Amino acid sequence: MEAKDTRHNVLKLVRLGIDARNEYMVFMRKDCPVCVSEGFEALNRIKVSKGNKTIVASLIVWDNEEHLTHDQLSLSEAAIDSLGANAGDELTLSHLDALDSMSDVRKKIYGHRLNQAAFDRIIGDIVNRNLSNIQLSAFLASSTGNALNQEEVIALTRSMINVGFKLDWGKDKVYDKHCIGGLPGNRTTPLVVSIVAAAGLTIPKTSSRAITSPAGTADTMEVVTNVNLTTEQMKKVVDLEGGCLAWGGSVQLSPADDILIRVEKALDIDSEGQMIASVLSKKAAAGSTDVVIDIPVGPTAKVRSREAAEHLSEKMVAVGKAIGLNIDIILTDGSQPVGRGIGPALEARDVLSVLRNEDHAPDDLRERAVLLAGRLLEMGGKVAEGAGALEALKILKSGEGYKKFTAICQAQGFFREPEVAPHKHKIKSITTGVVSEIDNRRLAKVAKLAGAPEAMTAGILLLTPLNTQVEENDTLFEIHAESHGELEYALSYLDTQKEIIKIKET
Amino acid sequence: MEAKDTRHNVLKLVRLGIDARNEYMVFMRKDCPVCVSEGFEALNRIKVSKGNKTIVASLIVWDNEEHLTHDQLSLSEAAIDSLGANAGDELTLSHLDALDSMSDVRKKIYGHRLNQAAFDRIIGDIVNRNLSNIQLSAFLASSTGNALNQEEVIALTRSMINVGFKLDWGKDKVYDKHCIGGLPGNRTTPLVVSIVAAAGLTIPKTSSRAITSPAGTADTMEVVTNVNLTTEQMKKVVDLEGGCLAWGGSVQLSPADDILIRVEKALDIDSEGQMIASVLSKKAAAGSTDVVIDIPVGPTAKVRSREAAEHLSEKMVAVGKAIGLNIDIILTDGSQPVGRGIGPALEARDVLSVLRNEDHAPDDLRERAVLLAGRLLEMGGKVAEGAGALEALKILKSGEGYKKFTAICQAQGFFREPEVAPHKHKIKSITTGVVSEIDNRRLAKVAKLAGAPEAMTAGILLLTPLNTQVEENDTLFEIHAESHGELEYALSYLDTQKEIIKIKET
Repeated sequence: MEAKDTRHNVLKLVRLGIDARNEYMVFMRKDCPVCVSEGFEALNRIKVSKGNKTIVASLIVWDNEEHLTHDQLSLSEAAIDSLGANAGDELTLSHLDALDSMSDVRKKIYGHRLNQAAFDRIIGDIVNRNLSNIQLSAFLASSTGNALNQEEVIALTRSMINVGFKLDWGKDKVYDKHCIGGLPGNRTTPLVVSIVAAAGLTIPKTSSRAITSPAGTADTMEVVTNVNLTTEQMKKVVDLEGGCLAWGGSVQLSPADDILIRVEKALDIDSEGQMIASVLSKKAAAGSTDVVIDIPVGPTAKVRSREAAEHLSEKMVAVGKAIGLNIDIILTDGSQPVGRGIGPALEARDVLSVLRNEDHAPDDLRERAVLLAGRLLEMGGKVAEGAGALEALKILKSGEGYKKFTAICQAQGFFREPEVAPHKHKIKSITTGVVSEIDNRRLAKVAKLAGAPEAMTAGILLLTPLNTQVEENDTLFEIHAESHGELEYALSYLDTQKEIIKIKET
Repeated sequence: MEAKDTRHNVLKLVRLGIDARNEYMVFMRKDCPVCVSEGFEALNRIKVSKGNKTIVASLIVWDNEEHLTHDQLSLSEAAIDSLGANAGDELTLSHLDALDSMSDVRKKIYGHRLNQAAFDRIIGDIVNRNLSNIQLSAFLASSTGNALNQEEVIALTRSMINVGFKLDWGKDKVYDKHCIGGLPGNRTTPLVVSIVAAAGLTIPKTSSRAITSPAGTADTMEVVTNVNLTTEQMKKVVDLEGGCLAWGGSVQLSPADDILIRVEKALDIDSEGQMIASVLSKKAAAGSTDVVIDIPVGPTAKVRSREAAEHLSEKMVAVGKAIGLNIDIILTDGSQPVGRGIGPALEARDVLSVLRNEDHAPDDLRERAVLLAGRLLEMGGKVAEGAGALEALKILKSGEGYKKFTAICQAQGFFREPEVAPHKHKIKSITTGVVSEIDNRRLAKVAKLAGAPEAMTAGILLLTPLNTQVEENDTLFEIHAESHGELEYALSYLDTQKEIIKIKET
C-alpha cells in the first residue's frame, strides 16, 4: 500500500487581502473536509503547495459560513506571493514533518554549541519561511546575550551570506561604511560616499529605509534623487561615478536577517551576535572588502558605554577577518542628534549645506563625515595614516564633494532640491539656562508623529544642541509637518512629555 | 493639555468566528481611521477595551473592502469571550505600553536570575494574555534546560499557584497521584482512587483529557460515568465516597500553565523547570497535601533514563517541600504500554477487568496500581512502610475496590458498561520469534489515527506484550475504529511504518 492519497487535501484559494507581515498564514473553515480529515487545529503548521512550490503556514480556523465555502481557503498576502498563486487556484494541504532545524534550535535552547551545518539548516529554514514566529523567537532568545561564541557568530554570518544574493563590482577593493544606529540626523553617508568617490575609490553604497527611525539614508536620498535602482543600474552608476547612493531593499542581501529583525523588534532584544552577523553578512553580500563602522556611544544611543563599544568593536573586527572583510571602527559621540534636521528633507538640507560649504552648515555633521571618509581614504592608500580627515575636508572645501554628489544623483536619474514643510510649529524654552541633555529617542518619536519618514518634509529642526545658552522664549526646535493633523499629533505627545531637552538653569 | 484624546480610536465589533487558539487577534482594515492615525501595523500589539475591560491582541491588517467597513473591526473568539463583547459593540483601541514583565523576560534571556516579584509579573501578564506567542516563546526558550535553578522553580511554582483557583476540601490530609506521561494505556488512576478511597483516605482526583495522547483519564472515565462536575458537585461526591474521578478542565487550577503548554508543544521542548512548576502548582491548587508521582522510564517514554528520572525526582521532592507538598516518587518500567487497551473504552475495559478480578485481567496494570495505591496507604498511616502494596491488593481482591469505583460513578451521575467498536482489524505477525521492542509513540499514533479519543471505542488492543512468543500469522494487535474511514486512515499510516512491534526471530 502506498503513502496516503492526498487528492482529497485540496482547497481553492480565495484572496482576502490579509497582511500578517512576515508570517505566512492559512485560513480554513473548521468544517472543511481537509481540517476534518487531517485533524488540523488552529495554529498548526501546515504545508501548502501549488504544483511543486510549497510553503509552510500557520492555521487560523474560521467558524463562520460567510467568508469561505467548504472547498475554499485563504492565505496571507505574503504567502500568496511566495506561492505565485492566483484566486481560484487549487492548493494542496498536508501536515508538516518535524524540522531538523528545530532540533538544532532546541540544542541551542539547552545551551549546546552549534556548528556550521546547524546554522545552515536553521538559516535555510528561515529563508524558506518554514519557521513560525514562535520558533524564530525561540531561536533568537536562545542565541542572545553571551549564548553565541565567536566561532558561532562566524558560522551564523556565513550561513546568512550563503542564502543571500551577492553583488560583484569587478574590483579588487570595494569600500563601504556602516553606522550602528540610534542617533537621529546622523546622515553622514551621502557625504562620505561623495568624498570617497571623488578621491577615486569605489564605494557602491546601498542603504535601508527607516524601520523605526524618522529617516533612513534611502529616505533622505529619495528627497533629492531616484534611489530605486536595479543591480544593473547600480553597476552603471558605479562604473560612471565610482559610487552610488541607492536603496538596498530591492536586492536581497541578507533575507534571513530581514525576517529575524522583525521578531527581534517584537521582543525588543538586541542580540550582539545576531547584530554582528546581520551587519557583516550584508557588507560581504554587497561585495565590500574594506568597511569603516561608526559606533555612536551615548546614554540614549544604541551603544551606551565605551566598554560596550570596545567589546563590540573587537568582536566585529575578528568576525570580519574570518569572512574576509577588513573592518575599521570609529567610536563617535552619541550624546545628541547630529546636524539640525531630523526627517528626510530636513536631513537632506543639512547634507546639501555641508556639500555647498554654506556658512550655516552644521559643523558636527561635517566633522563626522570627514572623520569617516578620511579613514576610508587611509584604508585605500590615498593618504598616509592620520592624514585622511584633512584630505577629506580638502575635497569638501574644493567643491569636488558637491560635484560628485550631484553627478551621482544625475547618474541615478535626476537631482532636485528638497522642499520645505507647509506646517511649522516652534517649541520655545520656558526658562533660561544651558542645554544639558537631549533625549534622542523621544525627539525621534516626535519627528515620527509629525509624519517622518512617509511625509518627506516632516520632522524636527533642532536649533539648540548641547551647551547652547538659551533665554526664556528662545526657540529650542521646530516641528515640521505636511498636515495640520500630524502636527497636532506630535504636539499632543509633546504635551505629555517632560524635558526632552533638559535646560540647566544658570 | 491632557493626554491624547481617544474618542476617535473607536471601531465597531463584527463577529467572524475566528479561532486562533490561545492567541488574541484583532482584525482591522489598513485604511480604517484608527490604523491610519495611530500608525498601527500588522503584528503590532494593541490594547482593545470595552468599558473598563481591556485585552491585548496581535493585529492582522485586511486590505480588502468586502469583510469590514471603515468603522468596523473583528476579533478572534477567545478575545471576544474575554472582553464579554457582542457584535456591534464600540471598542476602543490604543498602543500597548512596554510591559515590565518583558524586561524580566529579557533579563532571563541574558542569563540573569529572576526573583519572586519577576515571576509574579511574568505569570500575571501571561494569565491576562498580555504576552503574545512570540513573547511566550522567548520566555520558555530562556527558561529551559538548566536555566532555572531550584529557587527559581520554586518561585515560578508559587506564581502559578497564586494566579489560579484553589480547591479546599476541609481536610487536613488530601491524597493525590500523578504520572509524568508518555506511556499508552497506563490507566492506573481509577484503580488507585478506588483502592485508596476504599481504605478511608480522601482522594479527590481531577484528571485531564488527552492533549496529544489517545486517551486521558478523563476520557476513559467518561466512557463509564459523568466527569463534568462543578466544584460543588465534586465536594458532594468526595464527602460521600472519599474520592472522585472528575475532569479537571473546568476548574482553572493553573491557568498560566494552560497557556504556556500550547507554546511548549509548538516548540516541542520539555522544560524541566516549567514541567515541575506545572505539575506541582496544579497539585497545590487542587488542595492536595500528599502526592505519589509515577515516573515511567524507558527508551520511548517521556523520561528515558534512570539518571534523568532520579535527577527529576530529587528536584520535585525539594520544590514540593518548599511549597508544602509531601511528594513520594515511584520509578516504573516505561518500556511498553500498560494493560491491553489503548483508547478510552479499551482502557476502561482493562480497568473494569482488574476491579472485577477477572481471569484475563492485565497483571501489569494491577501491579502498578497496587504499587502506587500502596504507597499512598503508607503515607496515610493505614499500614506500616512496605506493607502498602499487599494491603492494596487485598482491597482489590476483596471486591471493595470495585464497590468503591461503582459507588463513585453513581455519585457522579451513573455507571455504564463500555461499548465495543464496530470496526476491527487484526495485525498479524509475518514471522516467528519473541517480541523484543514496542514503540510506544508510534503505537499511540495508530490509536489516534483510528479515532481515539474522540471516538470513544477506537484504539488499539495489544495482544503481545514484550517477551511474548509469537508464531507467523499470530495476531499482534487489533485496531478498533468507529468508522471505516478512520480504520483505513490508521492502516495506511501503518503501511508506511516498519517494526512498531519488533520480533526477534528465534
